[in-house]
Amino acid sequence: MTAHTNAKTPVTLLGLGAMGTALARAWLAAGHPLTVWNRTAARAEALAAEGATVAPDAAAAVAANDLVIVCLLDDASVGAALDGVDLTGKDVVDLTTTTPAQARARAASVTSRGARHLDGGIMAVPPMIGVPEAGGYVFYSGSPELFETYRHVLAVPAGTRFVGSDPGHAALHDVALLSAMYGMFAGVAHAFALIRKEDVDPVAFAPLLSEWISAMAGPHVTRTADQLKSGDYTTNVVSNLGMQTAGTPTFLSTARGQGVSPELLAPYFDLMRRRLAEGSPEEDLTGVVDLLLR
Amino acid sequence: MTAHTNAKTPVTLLGLGAMGTALARAWLAAGHPLTVWNRTAARAEALAAEGATVAPDAAAAVAANDLVIVCLLDDASVGAALDGVDLTGKDVVDLTTTTPAQARARAASVTSRGARHLDGGIMAVPPMIGVPEAGGYVFYSGSPELFETYRHVLAVPAGTRFVGSDPGHAALHDVALLSAMYGMFAGVAHAFALIRKEDVDPVAFAPLLSEWISAMAGPHVTRTADQLKSGDYTTNVVSNLGMQTAGTPTFLSTARGQGVSPELLAPYFDLMRRRLAEGSPEEDLTGVVDLLLR
Repeated sequence: MTAHTNAKTPVTLLGLGAMGTALARAWLAAGHPLTVWNRTAARAEALAAEGATVAPDAAAAVAANDLVIVCLLDDASVGAALDGVDLTGKDVVDLTTTTPAQARARAASVTSRGARHLDGGIMAVPPMIGVPEAGGYVFYSGSPELFETYRHVLAVPAGTRFVGSDPGHAALHDVALLSAMYGMFAGVAHAFALIRKEDVDPVAFAPLLSEWISAMAGPHVTRTADQLKSGDYTTNVVSNLGMQTAGTPTFLSTARGQGVSPELLAPYFDLMRRRLAEGSPEEDLTGVVDLLLR
Repeated sequence: MTAHTNAKTPVTLLGLGAMGTALARAWLAAGHPLTVWNRTAARAEALAAEGATVAPDAAAAVAANDLVIVCLLDDASVGAALDGVDLTGKDVVDLTTTTPAQARARAASVTSRGARHLDGGIMAVPPMIGVPEAGGYVFYSGSPELFETYRHVLAVPAGTRFVGSDPGHAALHDVALLSAMYGMFAGVAHAFALIRKEDVDPVAFAPLLSEWISAMAGPHVTRTADQLKSGDYTTNVVSNLGMQTAGTPTFLSTARGQGVSPELLAPYFDLMRRRLAEGSPEEDLTGVVDLLLR
């Protein structure tokens, strides 16, 4: 509670794992008074030397400032940390990775205790925090007023992207993008397995692989979105479901020939075949999305 | 067989599907005398009007020129088309999509009949052929002499990347990159399914999704390649196997909450868990590649 108007907004931070510690350092570096709490106190000591105030417990940390950032292991840890703490008038920003359902339940609980709530989903790893050129950002959803009040503070560690007032939508965006990334990782693992026993240098192969994935992602994602929105899966098709499904035996047979298990590719090919059996060969691959929702 | 030295190299092309037709138009547009053959003759007629010579059968098409490009439905079609045809002294470039094993067997068969052989794997869809700025290219492997003799002709429809003298390596690169792409497609399908029943505009969501995939692909692929080459899966780890595996329940539980089948994500998460059970939590995700090879 400083008296002069140019002072940086004070921040309370609960949780000093790798991500919490990176966030703490970003706010300290930008000159924000910072009060921290961590369940195991050892992690707070280094930050005290860098200028943070270490609170003895979560209640004291929350009491210190209006803006309370939470970055804990999981939603259960958030519940435990805030249990019995007076949240009246507080602005709680929960950056803990959760499901959309957990974020909605947490928002309902926090607001019922007299606080405003904003949920965040961090699209960055700790080394990207406080490094704007690394391109990391955080999805936010929930109270638009809370977001507007503190967007300059929230923008210190990473970029901000507000995705609406539904408190579950930040987590939904977060999980959706990370899920897609794991699909890409699965494809990458399969590709490297295919060349593993051949005289092909993985380091020379790598740029070919990543350029191809990056080049294909944009047009495919755009086309899929347009088709889902219009409901017409036959517009702007480049290689149709019939042709692509006809090509899948080559991929499975190559895997077999290279001694590679098809377990990461086969489920998608199965869905292509199922869609082809009930849809039209002239469609794009977009019908697979609907099959996942049955 | 033209007499003046500035004449463009004449080309024979077997196969006029969507890809073959696009290749034919690229060579015609660049002024190369072109002889074509297709099993069903109707597709050749439009090209005749554009200046191609239509051969009555594959043998006549092959007899017409030294350079013979083959772009058929599959390797069985190549075998059928070349059956009984005199290949002595010919330079056969097979752009048909095949497995590495099929490409090697085809190379052995063609060279045993007195021809040189080059296999190609096309990393483009037909609309990208003849459009250099579209970035399409073809992997080539097999006879380096054949490739050097004709690289300027081969470069007309799309970029060229020679990946060695093993005739199976072009197909291997082709299949590996396309397999990885289908993994990415699977992740994209899962992500769109997660938002499908929510008030989230897929067209607004699309650039977030494709930017994330493109941003994550390069560093992940580079790190995986370096780790596979060194054999040390704990170098330059950003988020380790232990932490990432601990996060997977959030993805599966979110899928369940959104009514989305986990079938496209679960196999990769299973492999992460298997690797964690036998490896170290400090590793990256690279050990999954080895599990695919058992």
